[in-house]
Amino acid sequence: MPKLIECVPNFSEGRNRDIIDALIKEAGSVAGVLLLDTSSDPSHNRSVFTLAGEPEAVGEAAFRLCKAASEKIDLTMHSGEHPRMGATDVIPFIPVKDTNIAECVALSKQVAERVWNELGIPVFLYEESAAAEYRRNLAQVRKGEFEGMPEKLLLPEWAPDFGERKVHPTAGVTAVGARKFLVAFNINLGTSDIKIAKAIAKAVRGSSGGYKCCKAIGVILEDRNIAQVSINMVDYDTTPLYRVFEAVRFEAERWGAPIIGSEIIGLTPMKALINAAEYYLKIQRFDFKRQVFENHLLNL
Amino acid sequence: MPKLIECVPNFSEGRNRDIIDALIKEAGSVAGVLLLDTSSDPSHNRSVFTLAGEPEAVGEAAFRLCKAASEKIDLTMHSGEHPRMGATDVIPFIPVKDTNIAECVALSKQVAERVWNELGIPVFLYEESAAAEYRRNLAQVRKGEFEGMPEKLLLPEWAPDFGERKVHPTAGVTAVGARKFLVAFNINLGTSDIKIAKAIAKAVRGSSGGYKCCKAIGVILEDRNIAQVSINMVDYDTTPLYRVFEAVRFEAERWGAPIIGSEIIGLTPMKALINAAEYYLKIQRFDFKRQVFENHLLNL
Repeated sequence: MPKLIECVPNFSEGRNRDIIDALIKEAGSVAGVLLLDTSSDPSHNRSVFTLAGEPEAVGEAAFRLCKAASEKIDLTMHSGEHPRMGATDVIPFIPVKDTNIAECVALSKQVAERVWNELGIPVFLYEESAAAEYRRNLAQVRKGEFEGMPEKLLLPEWAPDFGERKVHPTAGVTAVGARKFLVAFNINLGTSDIKIAKAIAKAVRGSSGGYKCCKAIGVILEDRNIAQVSINMVDYDTTPLYRVFEAVRFEAERWGAPIIGSEIIGLTPMKALINAAEYYLKIQRFDFKRQVFENHLLNL
Repeated sequence: MPKLIECVPNFSEGRNRDIIDALIKEAGSVAGVLLLDTSSDPSHNRSVFTLAGEPEAVGEAAFRLCKAASEKIDLTMHSGEHPRMGATDVIPFIPVKDTNIAECVALSKQVAERVWNELGIPVFLYEESAAAEYRRNLAQVRKGEFEGMPEKLLLPEWAPDFGERKVHPTAGVTAVGARKFLVAFNINLGTSDIKIAKAIAKAVRGSSGGYKCCKAIGVILEDRNIAQVSINMVDYDTTPLYRVFEAVRFEAERWGAPIIGSEIIGLTPMKALINAAEYYLKIQRFDFKRQVFENHLLNL
């Protein structure tokens, strides 16, 4: 396995098994692309696929999936809890091994161009691929959703990056972009006071002066009556998990609240955790690529 | 990649490039076997190969290497700093993924039987494959080396596990066995007093009452004038690295000596470090196989 990227396309169908199975079949139609995971949520009426492989092959698979989704999913008939604007709602490309965000940005633009040229679906580029700062955030791009898109596309600042100012009648609009691997990391506190979790979240997240690559909110876990700092680490190499963990710990101390545990939601690259082991075990001169046994297996 | 084992055969040739290259070529002759690393030491006059792959294929490669070494290396002409008793001195099999030590023990016995039957080289089984406790330790098995083996094999307690009580005239005797992955982990102390390192090593190692799967000695790093606890973790799942690290820390506190750093020598499986991240970040309900991204790549 030489270069490796991940792609996590989101489709606006989480109920109809025939359509989901057809998409799964499509995902397997490109040699060298691995379908690592699929999850379908009926109440969101949305499915999320996790693909991995070499950039070109993953780009081809993402395009084919987008085409199949545009043929099978009719957004005029769609309802669900999750905001959405397209049959294929969003296609993020994520660098994993021996590649970088720039290559994923380039790939996202190639795929976006094909989606417009061959399928007639207008595309917004978002996150690292965004043409302007106000287009980076997916929530901003998607605001108005499918139903509001015809009007939104006519606004001066919301011309699509590829395509005309006119939604595809049934497949809507798609967002395509590149981003880093996101690690979902929640830290539980020995308190039921959500104010403490909110204050800590505010202290550690980048948007309010904390760590740049950390997003965080304070929530209550209703079933356990525990306050939690719910964190997205959007670049675990630039801002390592242990650094935010230690910051949560020392902020919590001020309130007399201990950290009682944490959890990783979903997948994490091994390096996000090995970074932490290096810190706590004080390991010096560690060569991640050469010294981690599995890296040799992945390289061969 | 389904089942995966590692094999680290040691050959008594570290100078003659033609012979080493012939062995490297032989290692590549079995489909599905990866040669991850080779290192040759002229002063030891010894080469160490690291192979990985499915058990059966790795067993075949180990046998072919042993055969090639017996044809090319003449121990009657051999000198070097490292103790040795055979052209192929030792063949350890190590479980890595979706297999266990029992399977490696079984494989070691199959390979040992072939080495005697097809090559006429007597074999001692050692480590987890050993038939008796006194045969586990390689240093004990090899004591006397090539030159002393004719006599040693005649001793009542040193009949080989496979073969007659008679060394191969040029290829000597080979040790074959199964063992766990060994992680070499050294911890540096903020003191130049070797007595402190020795006392701590004694406190943490299994042989003198410490952690069962930990071997440790105290040494001085001459160039830096620093005392070091030099550790071999022989089963990082049963005795995790962080536990020994914390034990070294609290033993060192008693002497007023801080831990100033550590190092991992050579390769480590990712899990040996991820275990530590789970501990220090207090991660709960972590599913290593499912949640570590790279495990999916290795499984496909």
